[in-house]
Amino acid sequence: MARFIRKHHREIGASPDDFIFVGDKKTDHVTLRIIDYDKNNLEEIQINTVEEAIAYQEKKTTTWFNVDGLDTIDVMRKIAGGFALDNFILADVMDTHVRPKVQEYDNCLFVSLKMLQVDNESHLISFENLSLILTKTVLISFQEKKGDVFEPVRDRIRKQKKRLITSGPDYLLFALLDVVIDNYIYILSILGEKIESLEDNLLHNTEKRIIDSINVHKRELNFLRKHIHPVREMLLTLAKIDSDFINPKNSVHFKELQNNIDHASEISDSYREILSDQLNIYHTTVSTKLNEIMRFLTVFSVIFIPLTFIAGIYGTNFDVLPELHYKYSYFIMLGVMVLITIVMLIYFKKKKWF
Amino acid sequence: MARFIRKHHREIGASPDDFIFVGDKKTDHVTLRIIDYDKNNLEEIQINTVEEAIAYQEKKTTTWFNVDGLDTIDVMRKIAGGFALDNFILADVMDTHVRPKVQEYDNCLFVSLKMLQVDNESHLISFENLSLILTKTVLISFQEKKGDVFEPVRDRIRKQKKRLITSGPDYLLFALLDVVIDNYIYILSILGEKIESLEDNLLHNTEKRIIDSINVHKRELNFLRKHIHPVREMLLTLAKIDSDFINPKNSVHFKELQNNIDHASEISDSYREILSDQLNIYHTTVSTKLNEIMRFLTVFSVIFIPLTFIAGIYGTNFDVLPELHYKYSYFIMLGVMVLITIVMLIYFKKKKWF
Amino acid sequence: MARFIRKHHREIGASPDDFIFVGDKKTDHVTLRIIDYDKNNLEEIQINTVEEAIAYQEKKTTTWFNVDGLDTIDVMRKIAGGFALDNFILADVMDTHVRPKVQEYDNCLFVSLKMLQVDNESHLISFENLSLILTKTVLISFQEKKGDVFEPVRDRIRKQKKRLITSGPDYLLFALLDVVIDNYIYILSILGEKIESLEDNLLHNTEKRIIDSINVHKRELNFLRKHIHPVREMLLTLAKIDSDFINPKNSVHFKELQNNIDHASEISDSYREILSDQLNIYHTTVSTKLNEIMRFLTVFSVIFIPLTFIAGIYGTNFDVLPELHYKYSYFIMLGVMVLITIVMLIYFKKKKWF
Amino acid sequence: MARFIRKHHREIGASPDDFIFVGDKKTDHVTLRIIDYDKNNLEEIQINTVEEAIAYQEKKTTTWFNVDGLDTIDVMRKIAGGFALDNFILADVMDTHVRPKVQEYDNCLFVSLKMLQVDNESHLISFENLSLILTKTVLISFQEKKGDVFEPVRDRIRKQKKRLITSGPDYLLFALLDVVIDNYIYILSILGEKIESLEDNLLHNTEKRIIDSINVHKRELNFLRKHIHPVREMLLTLAKIDSDFINPKNSVHFKELQNNIDHASEISDSYREILSDQLNIYHTTVSTKLNEIMRFLTVFSVIFIPLTFIAGIYGTNFDVLPELHYKYSYFIMLGVMVLITIVMLIYFKKKKWF
Amino acid sequence: MARFIRKHHREIGASPDDFIFVGDKKTDHVTLRIIDYDKNNLEEIQINTVEEAIAYQEKKTTTWFNVDGLDTIDVMRKIAGGFALDNFILADVMDTHVRPKVQEYDNCLFVSLKMLQVDNESHLISFENLSLILTKTVLISFQEKKGDVFEPVRDRIRKQKKRLITSGPDYLLFALLDVVIDNYIYILSILGEKIESLEDNLLHNTEKRIIDSINVHKRELNFLRKHIHPVREMLLTLAKIDSDFINPKNSVHFKELQNNIDHASEISDSYREILSDQLNIYHTTVSTKLNEIMRFLTVFSVIFIPLTFIAGIYGTNFDVLPELHYKYSYFIMLGVMVLITIVMLIYFKKKKWF
Repeated sequence: MARFIRKHHREIGASPDDFIFVGDKKTDHVTLRIIDYDKNNLEEIQINTVEEAIAYQEKKTTTWFNVDGLDTIDVMRKIAGGFALDNFILADVMDTHVRPKVQEYDNCLFVSLKMLQVDNESHLISFENLSLILTKTVLISFQEKKGDVFEPVRDRIRKQKKRLITSGPDYLLFALLDVVIDNYIYILSILGEKIESLEDNLLHNTEKRIIDSINVHKRELNFLRKHIHPVREMLLTLAKIDSDFINPKNSVHFKELQNNIDHASEISDSYREILSDQLNIYHTTVSTKLNEIMRFLTVFSVIFIPLTFIAGIYGTNFDVLPELHYKYSYFIMLGVMVLITIVMLIYFKKKKWF
Repeated sequence: MARFIRKHHREIGASPDDFIFVGDKKTDHVTLRIIDYDKNNLEEIQINTVEEAIAYQEKKTTTWFNVDGLDTIDVMRKIAGGFALDNFILADVMDTHVRPKVQEYDNCLFVSLKMLQVDNESHLISFENLSLILTKTVLISFQEKKGDVFEPVRDRIRKQKKRLITSGPDYLLFALLDVVIDNYIYILSILGEKIESLEDNLLHNTEKRIIDSINVHKRELNFLRKHIHPVREMLLTLAKIDSDFINPKNSVHFKELQNNIDHASEISDSYREILSDQLNIYHTTVSTKLNEIMRFLTVFSVIFIPLTFIAGIYGTNFDVLPELHYKYSYFIMLGVMVLITIVMLIYFKKKKWF
Repeated sequence: MARFIRKHHREIGASPDDFIFVGDKKTDHVTLRIIDYDKNNLEEIQINTVEEAIAYQEKKTTTWFNVDGLDTIDVMRKIAGGFALDNFILADVMDTHVRPKVQEYDNCLFVSLKMLQVDNESHLISFENLSLILTKTVLISFQEKKGDVFEPVRDRIRKQKKRLITSGPDYLLFALLDVVIDNYIYILSILGEKIESLEDNLLHNTEKRIIDSINVHKRELNFLRKHIHPVREMLLTLAKIDSDFINPKNSVHFKELQNNIDHASEISDSYREILSDQLNIYHTTVSTKLNEIMRFLTVFSVIFIPLTFIAGIYGTNFDVLPELHYKYSYFIMLGVMVLITIVMLIYFKKKKWF
Repeated sequence: MARFIRKHHREIGASPDDFIFVGDKKTDHVTLRIIDYDKNNLEEIQINTVEEAIAYQEKKTTTWFNVDGLDTIDVMRKIAGGFALDNFILADVMDTHVRPKVQEYDNCLFVSLKMLQVDNESHLISFENLSLILTKTVLISFQEKKGDVFEPVRDRIRKQKKRLITSGPDYLLFALLDVVIDNYIYILSILGEKIESLEDNLLHNTEKRIIDSINVHKRELNFLRKHIHPVREMLLTLAKIDSDFINPKNSVHFKELQNNIDHASEISDSYREILSDQLNIYHTTVSTKLNEIMRFLTVFSVIFIPLTFIAGIYGTNFDVLPELHYKYSYFIMLGVMVLITIVMLIYFKKKKWF
Repeated sequence: MARFIRKHHREIGASPDDFIFVGDKKTDHVTLRIIDYDKNNLEEIQINTVEEAIAYQEKKTTTWFNVDGLDTIDVMRKIAGGFALDNFILADVMDTHVRPKVQEYDNCLFVSLKMLQVDNESHLISFENLSLILTKTVLISFQEKKGDVFEPVRDRIRKQKKRLITSGPDYLLFALLDVVIDNYIYILSILGEKIESLEDNLLHNTEKRIIDSINVHKRELNFLRKHIHPVREMLLTLAKIDSDFINPKNSVHFKELQNNIDHASEISDSYREILSDQLNIYHTTVSTKLNEIMRFLTVFSVIFIPLTFIAGIYGTNFDVLPELHYKYSYFIMLGVMVLITIVMLIYFKKKKWF
């Protein structure tokens, strides 16, 4: 479970436009990739220098410039220079703890959010900060490390899906955000399956590990909610923004994104309620079971109390204790004891005490 | 009880305008039905090809084109082509897990929501996705399977109810949504009757099955709320939309729908509160009963403790134990025991301990 | 206690402008009353036909046309015709389960809400649906049965109160709504007195009937809240409406109504909090008392446990048990027992265990 | 503790512009006072007739006309007439149960709120309704009885504080409201000190009177909140109002008032949370203590149970019971008992059961 | 832990523009410091008289005038005079209990908030009121005592960081607010680490000091929230303000501040939830452990109850008690006892009672 506190803070009071990497270094060197396409052409290459990417800026084609690895200040400086980006933007890109946000600048639109990714084998969830910079012809994406959730989008480009290759970088931005949010929903649904599989054990099983599972799921869900919630806010802004970088005819897609994140949010609310109900059911089951036991045992003890008392009386050593000397006393005593037991059992049964 | 997680997901990263059926296939073949009417004419037929439906588009009459079964990509493609609909719309129609929404396009208004339906015999609730596409002269409705809640509307058309047959496809849209929401309220009221019938058992019965019933009702209610809540949001948008496809003089009806869904929402809130009160009452009843038992039994034990102790003392085998040898010792002991019992009973009674 | 579910539903899918009575029939025949007044004249009569009422429409005087009994479709149809009202309005009038609302039409303003009324003798609360239709010169009021809360308003008309008789039908509408809301507050205050009278019993009394009372009051309060809450919403709309039927100089009065309903709402919130506090106090009192008892009894038992054990030891029949044969053994044993008791009492006292 | 229900209601259905005093009569006769001032002059007199006050209306100076005692209809009628006030205003002034509000009329601004006042000796909180009417040159204040919180303002006028004597009646209105709200904060802080002084007792003391104190404080706080909350709403309206009677350059002061009432509101929220935390801490302390006791006593009993059983076995009277006849049997039994005790103590200690 | 109540109140009814120091005096004399800079020059001096500072007002350079110590009325009066500030502003500056706010005046912008500071050695959190007055060329900052969190900003000025030294006093204001909010986040993260370090102890440790720690953390967090919450509101106003004193191109930075305070707010919400979860987990752990103990001990007792009863029966002294005289009676009794024990253990095990 990821901790909520980040160990690395941006130095307090550092100038907000200084290039300082904040976060856990997840890769050793920067990888730069270019996918450049329009209706007719497609070029997908890995490049070595930022300068090569800058050259694409002038072309009319849609260019997707992907940067894996954020800690090389030199690269960042070149990108800022080459694309004429405000230093603030790249300072935000390098701060992996920045809050999801969208901000419009004179020559670009800056979007930042968390990318959640589930490893299909280990089932571990990794998360990293994703920054997207949209200019008129280029979409620059910054990731903390190699490996992302965008393979399906790349495939659609490679397969020359018409809508994608004819719609410019703003549609590409939508496509990337769409796949990020689809992954939120997917990860929520994986967690959800684990939560729902607890259900069957819940009504009759009182083992402590169930409540431990519930608590673990609760924390995982809170962790997801914590990351999804501010993205919702961000997309709200994005859907309402009247930006030069987004073609009005694509703005309907950004509204769609909001629908999806609302869906994610509703799912997470559902699971939150389910978990809270499960906790209640568990507690009720436990206390019902304890009641049952305590009632049985108490009734059991109570029946023996007067019997033991009677035996105690006839265990006294008084010189004169007439009953001791009758022939059938002992058997009468046993009979009385049986009688008392029966009467008490009937009484308790009638009172529904066990 | 339906599970909250859907097993079928739209493939992550799939292009949002691809035609992919997402959901459980509920019917084997597509059924196409046309009801075409105006003030003077009424035609109700089952057709075999989409082309026949497309022809109605040109007529000035109001046409209701109903499609049962969503998984035939070929049919969908023809509808999209014939009615010049954006691929996005039909992709949404085919995704039965889409969130209720309303979206205006250049040549149509798209509405999507869940249709809940109760089987009058088995009392099971089925739900399916309902998509409605409103153009100037045609209302296209898509359902997952045959059988719907719209028979009363068809009857009104057949009986030539004046308001309906003179008011165009936007009024037909209203009539369909109205009947869907009426069913929400009806289903809520059925659940409500079950919830209220628990009430009488609640104050004196502590059986575990009551709490199980409450929990089941709670989950059912949550399930309904989960489906009704986003519809409310959707209708809010629909009531405020200034669409070319809705005649201003009909807009008052869409406001009416909002009143109805608010009503549904208030009813479900009421039941939610009732269930939560019932849970509290149950827990109070259980703990009151346990208290009563524990108090009785504890008082019972406590009375015997000193008596048994006294008997124990006179059961000791000391050589010198003067009381053992008096003639009336035993009877005095018994008398003292009765006295102690009476004093304790009075004391406990006074303290209101039982 | 009224049930939350209504047994009579409007038939699902019925045309929203059909005249169908929905509700419990509370009167056998319709009563029509006219009060017609202006600065100089006052006429108060009971009429037999709707036509007589329609005639008043043309007069410049203010006419209050009151209809008791909603189930005669024929009468409704005549009213709709005579006053040229949309069928929707009268369909809503006849549906006693409609949600409180205000709706402006071309030729009238339609207001619908619940009228709560307390019987001063039986202290039972009855409620019925009240519909008000305001045209330029006439106010039509529809009630489910004879008997209402409007007698004070009639008295003010009869006594020729200047403000009322000079201000037109919109002021009459305000006066009627005002008295309905005053009754909400009055009924809340009656319930409130019952709630507050519980207070004194609460701190020391743990009888179950207190919690039953609290639960009953809670349900009654929820019932009232359920009816008052949507009225608040309705009045908010009414206060903001810019209607031709309301003289701008009277609009301040409708704002006043909102203040009153807010007051009612705040009172009900107060009582809700008080009830919830009472429940907490009750539970604390009960558990404090149980703690006290259990502590006393447990300490009591614990003191006897070692004493009984000692007596048990000297009740054994070992051949060699030296203490049995000393002369003062018995008395020493008794002394030791007293000592143990005193030491334990001191210890428990010091630990504040009882 | 004041009750939440008022015993005196305005008669239901009474005309809202009738002069009816509603409330507890707190003074026997009306006192009229005038403070009239401008930059150069100051006049402070007690007057006998309303007519004298009306005369000040024409002067350009700022006039503060204070009325103590609300139940003399005759006086009210003269004021309404002399200052040309709407009857509604004075009907509201005389209804001491009216909700705090601000309302603008053609020739005046009407403000109504509750004035809380703490008696410095008895520490009792009294509250009364305060109505303020602001015209171009006069501020009329209505109080239920003599004695108010305004002495500091009068002192500032007497001492000729520049800001106050040069700023007109709207600034005087601000000054009076300011002092009323300062008193809210002061009274909250007195309650707060009592609440915080409970803190130290809380962690180790489980006496019932602590929970009684918490409950009393809770009710007192609720009482204050109930009165402060609607004032907040009222001030919000007042701060936004664009009234002719408030000089734009003074409007910043009314915004300031809102800051102060927000502060009061935040303080009361803090105390609410503290009280709720205290309740939780108390319950935890009580249950922790009970657990400790029950554990000790249960362990204590459990140790004696097998010992008493062993003694019981050797108390049986079987003819053949070999152990009874060995010489050291008794001592061996005692030894075994000691051993069992030690083993059990070690076991329980290891399990951390006491 | 700081108390919530302030001991020093501004005298009730004091004129809001009087210069009265409210708070705890934290320094004995006032320290005045000037940092004056532009692109080319930098001057940092400590001055002795307010007059020296006033002189800088005319220069085109950016001047940061810092005042440590608020209680010298004379100094305040000179500053008010020299910079032509409204008396209200300086009255607010001197009231250290004022609520965070931003207010625009004709010739300046006034910002007030709390500055939290953690002592790196003692780990104690101190807080003081910070007031900032922004004019066209000067930023005046008022602190309660020497020592602040602004050293990093001073360093950036000294190091001639380009953005800062070229951007005017509004950017300086942003830089100071930025560092104050960074400190909020830093302090929250310190508290957060303490909270998360509790986690590991939580699942198996039931010592009371854990709950004490949770309660302490809860109060500390509430304390921080109480100070951060109104700052959020203040920054919202600041971000939306359209002030002459803030260069439009710097307004994006103030929006950034809001992002940061939202971040702080979200962190504090997270910890609040974690603490509340921890409390639940603790309670569950404690009650699970108690259940375990009680169950063990009750089962233990219950097994001995019938055994002791049997021994009691054969301890009676009846003349005729046949079993006593058989040779193997004693051994049979022991055998029966072992059997009963085994049967009960199996039964309880099967029922999963221990």
